[in-house]
Amino acid sequence: MKSISDEGLTGLIPAGKLEKMTGESVTIHGMVQRIRRLGWGAFIILRRHDGLLQCVMGNEGNEDILEKLDVEQSVEITGTVKKAGIKDTSIHPNTVELHVNSIEFISLPAAQPPVDMTKKVLDLHIDTNLDLRPLSLRHPVERSRLKVAETFASAFRSSLSGMGFTEIRTPKICSAGAEGGANIFKIKYFDREAFLAQSPQFYKQMGVGVFERVFEVGPVFRAEPHQTSRHINEYTSLDFEMGFITGFEEVMAVEIAVLRDCMEALKRDCSVELEMLGADLPVIPADVPSVTLEQAHRITLEISGKDNTAEPDLDPEEEKILCVHSLEKWDSEFLFVTHFPTEKRPFYTMDDPENPGTTLSFDLLFRGLEVTTGGQRIHDYNAQVEKIKAFGLDPEAFESYLQAHRYGLPPHGGLAIGLERMTARILGVDNIRLTTMFPRDVKRLTP
Amino acid sequence: MKSISDEGLTGLIPAGKLEKMTGESVTIHGMVQRIRRLGWGAFIILRRHDGLLQCVMGNEGNEDILEKLDVEQSVEITGTVKKAGIKDTSIHPNTVELHVNSIEFISLPAAQPPVDMTKKVLDLHIDTNLDLRPLSLRHPVERSRLKVAETFASAFRSSLSGMGFTEIRTPKICSAGAEGGANIFKIKYFDREAFLAQSPQFYKQMGVGVFERVFEVGPVFRAEPHQTSRHINEYTSLDFEMGFITGFEEVMAVEIAVLRDCMEALKRDCSVELEMLGADLPVIPADVPSVTLEQAHRITLEISGKDNTAEPDLDPEEEKILCVHSLEKWDSEFLFVTHFPTEKRPFYTMDDPENPGTTLSFDLLFRGLEVTTGGQRIHDYNAQVEKIKAFGLDPEAFESYLQAHRYGLPPHGGLAIGLERMTARILGVDNIRLTTMFPRDVKRLTP
Repeated sequence: MKSISDEGLTGLIPAGKLEKMTGESVTIHGMVQRIRRLGWGAFIILRRHDGLLQCVMGNEGNEDILEKLDVEQSVEITGTVKKAGIKDTSIHPNTVELHVNSIEFISLPAAQPPVDMTKKVLDLHIDTNLDLRPLSLRHPVERSRLKVAETFASAFRSSLSGMGFTEIRTPKICSAGAEGGANIFKIKYFDREAFLAQSPQFYKQMGVGVFERVFEVGPVFRAEPHQTSRHINEYTSLDFEMGFITGFEEVMAVEIAVLRDCMEALKRDCSVELEMLGADLPVIPADVPSVTLEQAHRITLEISGKDNTAEPDLDPEEEKILCVHSLEKWDSEFLFVTHFPTEKRPFYTMDDPENPGTTLSFDLLFRGLEVTTGGQRIHDYNAQVEKIKAFGLDPEAFESYLQAHRYGLPPHGGLAIGLERMTARILGVDNIRLTTMFPRDVKRLTP
Repeated sequence: MKSISDEGLTGLIPAGKLEKMTGESVTIHGMVQRIRRLGWGAFIILRRHDGLLQCVMGNEGNEDILEKLDVEQSVEITGTVKKAGIKDTSIHPNTVELHVNSIEFISLPAAQPPVDMTKKVLDLHIDTNLDLRPLSLRHPVERSRLKVAETFASAFRSSLSGMGFTEIRTPKICSAGAEGGANIFKIKYFDREAFLAQSPQFYKQMGVGVFERVFEVGPVFRAEPHQTSRHINEYTSLDFEMGFITGFEEVMAVEIAVLRDCMEALKRDCSVELEMLGADLPVIPADVPSVTLEQAHRITLEISGKDNTAEPDLDPEEEKILCVHSLEKWDSEFLFVTHFPTEKRPFYTMDDPENPGTTLSFDLLFRGLEVTTGGQRIHDYNAQVEKIKAFGLDPEAFESYLQAHRYGLPPHGGLAIGLERMTARILGVDNIRLTTMFPRDVKRLTP
């Protein structure tokens, strides 16, 4: 028998702590991001868990090490922390650097990177970038995008927890789709057929009966056959659902509060990344404008001359026009569009009693793209059964879902934010594939 | 154009705040959990977002309301907070109750629950419980189990974040399985075949090259055809992977630190639930015992007389015997078992150079069950290619995974904790299906 203890565990030294250790000797480890060789020696930029550290090594007595040193090696460095003023925004900490006393080689790569990883921006074709993802993600720009997405997701979680929401986990293997339509993946589930969850919608609503306010951060799957820059087939859905609402606008108000917290978190925890990426955080105004779909169509007609007033949804062009208009006219980068027609929204959506044919639903547009879909749901059992029938579906097929309504639900509503789309819009990244580690699309299943 | 603002949002009043509002008048909402009618009136137990609140209502002037009042109705109640000493452990807050002035009915169920939801424990057959999940989860005991699981997952996250780990999200739709074996679900992915992730293993290792320390909390899928009380086909895996380890025992040490933080969190945030569920939190000793598989087999041989020394794994009976033994002999409810044979562990596992035929791997046993699998991984490219071949597999099939090794990885290791198993062991729940909202097994795809 041996004993294992956590007592001797030594933590990593974060960048923020290193900045306060001027004059001290430290031993740290990391992977060599890049090397700048000069007459007197070299700057060694070390990739660490929380950023890049500049290390300085003179030639004298270090010829062998500098000869052997190369990118992507795993090394342990002992040196002295000294003040520095580093302008390269990819390097953090930028107020100190490490003056190297010794370097120990811990692990060496088997091959050199096939692309130049030392450039400020990885100007690779997107397919090359994605094919080489285990390597390309090591570039500070790629890595920073992930950090921004994770910080956003984490802030979503803590914001809602603070408002009394409970996190839930719902199954991704389902017997039926929640969102309707053909874009659903089929699984062979033992001797029968099952489906991958298009959204946690049904389960969130069941969760309202249990915890009143619930949220989930998890993967959803859409068998979308289109290869566009704004679609991926597996994405992260930030979902919440809340009971006892007084109207669907309360859901929109909670979204504003959540987005406010998320942007605050990005400002606080991702300032280094946002500066490196040259991203401007949006300001969330005290009042976010909201127009009906009908009004939205009229606005775009007036601006573009193209008449979409008979269409049940916005087209991508209209989304762009509306966002420009919202910023110019209402000083808001966010714009709600409400009252989508009944046939365009899933059967769980509540119709607007005051505007027959439309629903108490909304999208949130941000920098030219829809980043949220939400609305009030039907809570009355009989009303839900009727609407399922009106949609030409069989209530029997939704028996277990309908239990929630049969045994009672308060008025409720919720929404879903697409994490990758939101991140892409915050960072001004054209293709959402670049905001996630390993995107899936019609053609891509690897890495 | 309308304006939506988060300014007017009124939050929920949590139990902790209600306890400090004695004498004040409040308006709250909730669903009626149960009603105890007495000569003078009734106790109305209201289900709220964070627990059950006792409300007291006299008959006088309230005859119509009390006549109409029933379980699972959504109501709004105005009343005065008064001191109380409530012994029922399912009710929280237990130091105050609400003396009702008025009740407004917000939403009524369409049917009465088909089972008695007012019992202290829902003594239903497990299939009935799971068939009625949207309803049965509303029972305080069922709901509390979910709260414990969520608190554990949340503490796992914050503990690792505090140690410099970055949260990642990896694809669940994959082109190959990470764990080998036949227990993998197939998906029809457009015109080809894909698989559901058995674990995030490959991606975690790629993540080590990016962030050095990574973790993920997400669903994994195992097409396990066995119908047992400790298997479900979709479960939550708490995964971490860390670079620059000095040996696989460092991974075990980090697990101890994480478990310590998780148990602290449960103690702090789930005291009400743990008391209601009659659960005893384990003490994490300063030193957690660790035996090799060979030693483990010898211990069980001595105790049970059954000779498993030639077996490459522990059987369920041995896991139970070892846990009893560990508690008696080493005063620890946790026991590591190490050095599983090479052929029993996936190809990414590092062999022990000092004990040929065995690996630098471990399981963690807790209260009779394996709750963690972990170990050191191969970081050297050539060593990994050789082992893939030795396993009779084609390195070409793992081309994108092997990029991580080819372009350099530090020595690293990690582990996975099964959230449902861990929760079941903490709570003493026999069937892990009861620790998750909507379990999936060979026979169950709904709700």
